[in-house]
Amino acid sequence: MGYQEFTIEGRNAVIEAFRAGKPIDKLFIQDGCQDGPIMTIKREAKKNDTLVKFVTRERLDQMSVTGKHQGVIAYAAAYEYAEVGDLLAAARAKGEPPFLFLLDNIEDPHNLGAIIRTANLAGAHGVIIPKNRSVGLTATVARTSAGALHYTPVARVTNLANTIEELKKEGLWFVCADMDGTVMYKLDLRGPIGLVIGSEGEGVGRLVKEKCDMVAAIPMKGNIDSLNASVAAGVLAYEIVRQRL
Amino acid sequence: MGYQEFTIEGRNAVIEAFRAGKPIDKLFIQDGCQDGPIMTIKREAKKNDTLVKFVTRERLDQMSVTGKHQGVIAYAAAYEYAEVGDLLAAARAKGEPPFLFLLDNIEDPHNLGAIIRTANLAGAHGVIIPKNRSVGLTATVARTSAGALHYTPVARVTNLANTIEELKKEGLWFVCADMDGTVMYKLDLRGPIGLVIGSEGEGVGRLVKEKCDMVAAIPMKGNIDSLNASVAAGVLAYEIVRQRL
Repeated sequence: MGYQEFTIEGRNAVIEAFRAGKPIDKLFIQDGCQDGPIMTIKREAKKNDTLVKFVTRERLDQMSVTGKHQGVIAYAAAYEYAEVGDLLAAARAKGEPPFLFLLDNIEDPHNLGAIIRTANLAGAHGVIIPKNRSVGLTATVARTSAGALHYTPVARVTNLANTIEELKKEGLWFVCADMDGTVMYKLDLRGPIGLVIGSEGEGVGRLVKEKCDMVAAIPMKGNIDSLNASVAAGVLAYEIVRQRL
Repeated sequence: MGYQEFTIEGRNAVIEAFRAGKPIDKLFIQDGCQDGPIMTIKREAKKNDTLVKFVTRERLDQMSVTGKHQGVIAYAAAYEYAEVGDLLAAARAKGEPPFLFLLDNIEDPHNLGAIIRTANLAGAHGVIIPKNRSVGLTATVARTSAGALHYTPVARVTNLANTIEELKKEGLWFVCADMDGTVMYKLDLRGPIGLVIGSEGEGVGRLVKEKCDMVAAIPMKGNIDSLNASVAAGVLAYEIVRQRL
């Protein structure tokens, strides 16, 4: 399961992790570091399309578990990511119309884990998350997924709006959740579908929302604004399940 | 909001909290303490039906924030609890058939907060939790409820099975979630209803389940066992909302 490998600290350790093909979520490099090993790490990061953040030495000291970060700390994914094509292949292998979850910047690992768990049980063929600004497959995500991460593939993409465009060519329709949409019970959610869930604070981003074919509203009778993101994902996913039955 | 008052440490502070009528969730007393103030605290705890746990001094030292627990630490609720009668009155005031959530030992404060949030938005009139073996209305619950705790009353009862019996006399029907039940779409979930949600690990307890009129199954197509408790609560609650519309 590789939980222990989650944080990788020190120059050689990070270079080796890249060379061994370990999936690295994020890389933190000390501001102003320009020496040989750091340049090598930057090249590897660029080659692997890894998100790099430049931070102060004090920040790295705070993040460090070992106290020996040598100016670089990598967050490695506990699990391997899939490709979007793998998700479609999984649907084809089951002879089912594709049913995918697309998460627009979920930042809470408990929510991401719970949503992957829901995706598994609702019979979805995979989950797509953006590379940037989203939590990755950390140990907390794995734990809160209750094992679903072993079965439900998760793909990471650079641009969610572009991925939606590409998947439309494969025949998928996209529905996102928003309060100003049509009550979900009145929408036709059968057929190949991508369910788009927005972030905890801001909902679905404007660019992504514009790409969606349908905007679904969950009926709200209460005094507050919105459901927890993983609960909203569950409620919408099961409306899709109900209509597909 | 009283978040700061969550932990109360020291003999006088705890005695005063009881006398001021502050709702105390749990009381931790050092094993073997028999002196006057501790006996007073035990009497107050008994009078208020507060759960008391006897622990070692080392345990109290670990729990202590101030380092001055004097053999006693109280966990005070950040919010006041309602009575079951208040929940029914809220339904009457709105001219709606009662819709209550009953939680059978939810232990994770994030789940309890998310469920109270769902109860609010699904238009439920309140949430009932057992006094024992359940997390109370802590600061984490308040935060994850996203404000719903200001609007949706939460009542605590000594015995959930007895409460179900009493509420049946008020005309409520009870549905709980379990894998061996009838698919939820085939049940009639309209009318006055209590939705019973089981704990994260063990689901709905046997005694409580026997009191339920209906057992609802959420369709599961995946490889793992169960949804997150707050997601399951959301999916079932919204099936009730759909049928009521």
